[in-house]
Amino acid sequence: MKILKTANAMRKWLDATTGRTVLVPTMGALHRGHGALIEKARKLAGKSGRVVVSIFVNPTQFGPKEDLSRYPRPFSADAEMCQKLGADAIFHPTPETVYPPGFSTYVEEHSVAAGLCGASRPGHFRGVCTVVLKLFNVCRPDVAVFGLKDFQQCRVIARMARDLDVPVRLVFAPTVRESDGLAMSSRNTYLDAEQRAQAPVLRRGLLAAQKAFRAGETSAAKLTAIVARQIATAPIARVDYIAAVDGESLEPVTKLKRGDTIALAVFFGKTRLIDNIQT
Amino acid sequence: MKILKTANAMRKWLDATTGRTVLVPTMGALHRGHGALIEKARKLAGKSGRVVVSIFVNPTQFGPKEDLSRYPRPFSADAEMCQKLGADAIFHPTPETVYPPGFSTYVEEHSVAAGLCGASRPGHFRGVCTVVLKLFNVCRPDVAVFGLKDFQQCRVIARMARDLDVPVRLVFAPTVRESDGLAMSSRNTYLDAEQRAQAPVLRRGLLAAQKAFRAGETSAAKLTAIVARQIATAPIARVDYIAAVDGESLEPVTKLKRGDTIALAVFFGKTRLIDNIQT
Repeated sequence: MKILKTANAMRKWLDATTGRTVLVPTMGALHRGHGALIEKARKLAGKSGRVVVSIFVNPTQFGPKEDLSRYPRPFSADAEMCQKLGADAIFHPTPETVYPPGFSTYVEEHSVAAGLCGASRPGHFRGVCTVVLKLFNVCRPDVAVFGLKDFQQCRVIARMARDLDVPVRLVFAPTVRESDGLAMSSRNTYLDAEQRAQAPVLRRGLLAAQKAFRAGETSAAKLTAIVARQIATAPIARVDYIAAVDGESLEPVTKLKRGDTIALAVFFGKTRLIDNIQT
Repeated sequence: MKILKTANAMRKWLDATTGRTVLVPTMGALHRGHGALIEKARKLAGKSGRVVVSIFVNPTQFGPKEDLSRYPRPFSADAEMCQKLGADAIFHPTPETVYPPGFSTYVEEHSVAAGLCGASRPGHFRGVCTVVLKLFNVCRPDVAVFGLKDFQQCRVIARMARDLDVPVRLVFAPTVRESDGLAMSSRNTYLDAEQRAQAPVLRRGLLAAQKAFRAGETSAAKLTAIVARQIATAPIARVDYIAAVDGESLEPVTKLKRGDTIALAVFFGKTRLIDNIQT
């Protein structure tokens, strides 16, 4: 497995090898959720294809008061995991080469990115769109695989790719969860024992709302209230948002139909966790 | 020569043919300046390569009070010229397919695009960057050729391409001029006889400043004043800006060195003409 640290090195390796390229963009701190994405990429690439995992903690998607500096960067363990799962290359550039002096160009999606996490984290999706487009331009994948835990990110990237005619097929893979339902996230490592014990309330709230929807309740107000009541049973939890939205445009809905989404962001201490469920 | 009207048709044609691809992005209304770009592209592509001319009057780079609706669209004459000059394909999409319903993603360069025409035409370079990136994603050229009459556009696209790791080699070709020095532009057709007679004052002013620089004058204030005095001899001319800037960053300079640029935009009636000169 190659470890490539610059766009030039990546391009040279791509020129020197052949086969369908499948990219898994990550910020590292890989967990079993990422593992499932890499396994998926391996299947999509086939034996003759190339699986590239990018590992880059992207500064432009962090707000000034967010966790950029303390975000975990266990590169050796990440590389070991990539190798075990059959990746062919890791693209692991430095912030200085990704954002050279005078960097002044951003990709901005103004609609799908506007609400939910986009409202709570100004500039976040601008950073995401910009780095994803850059990764696509460097790695020129045929396919890219993203995880649906970051539901809004998936929808924003899909819109961006459609709007800019990005020649990459996007694959979105289901969220992988701990046995108690907590969505896998690199940020789960921030949680102390008490926070960790309470965090599965997010999944329980979303499942309760899904159950109510399936029993006939379609009111967004009532379904999000079901989630909120469940979360209120966790004394540490502090809700950022709980929202019922259209599953494509992410515009708010008042009545839910199949394929809509309930999404949430909740703080446990300083740690902000997200999750979502489809009706 | 193929005429392709959708991104899908363009992609299919690219998949069905082989060879180095050289793209000339235009808004049509082709004149000898464009002709020189197509000839350049033909040379760069070689016999086995593919020259693609895109013809698309891009609505997102026009301001609400600008000349989008009256911009000339002589497609048959354009196609004839492309064929004569050896183009292999014209990409000629409709605004509706380039900007489908719900279009919400833009590419924005915030530094090189900020001054000069960017200041006079808010949103113009956002439209330019967005459409150029889209054209690159659809046509996937190895090389793209732009004309230096649109000097700021060239520098903005160069910065955008660097920042976003766009895998396209950019070639900037010299401005082609009428015999009296007026830079070729599709907008020259808007000029009435009197305006047309006075318009060469732009080139005379820039040449006078260049001559003064070569004779030792480096003050931006004095050199732009030389241009302004010359333009003042044309009673119809109304200056939008005359600026001395760094030739890469387009930041204003107070002392000019070799490779800096004097750029201007001047109205003749409702018609806004631009030109520039390198010191």
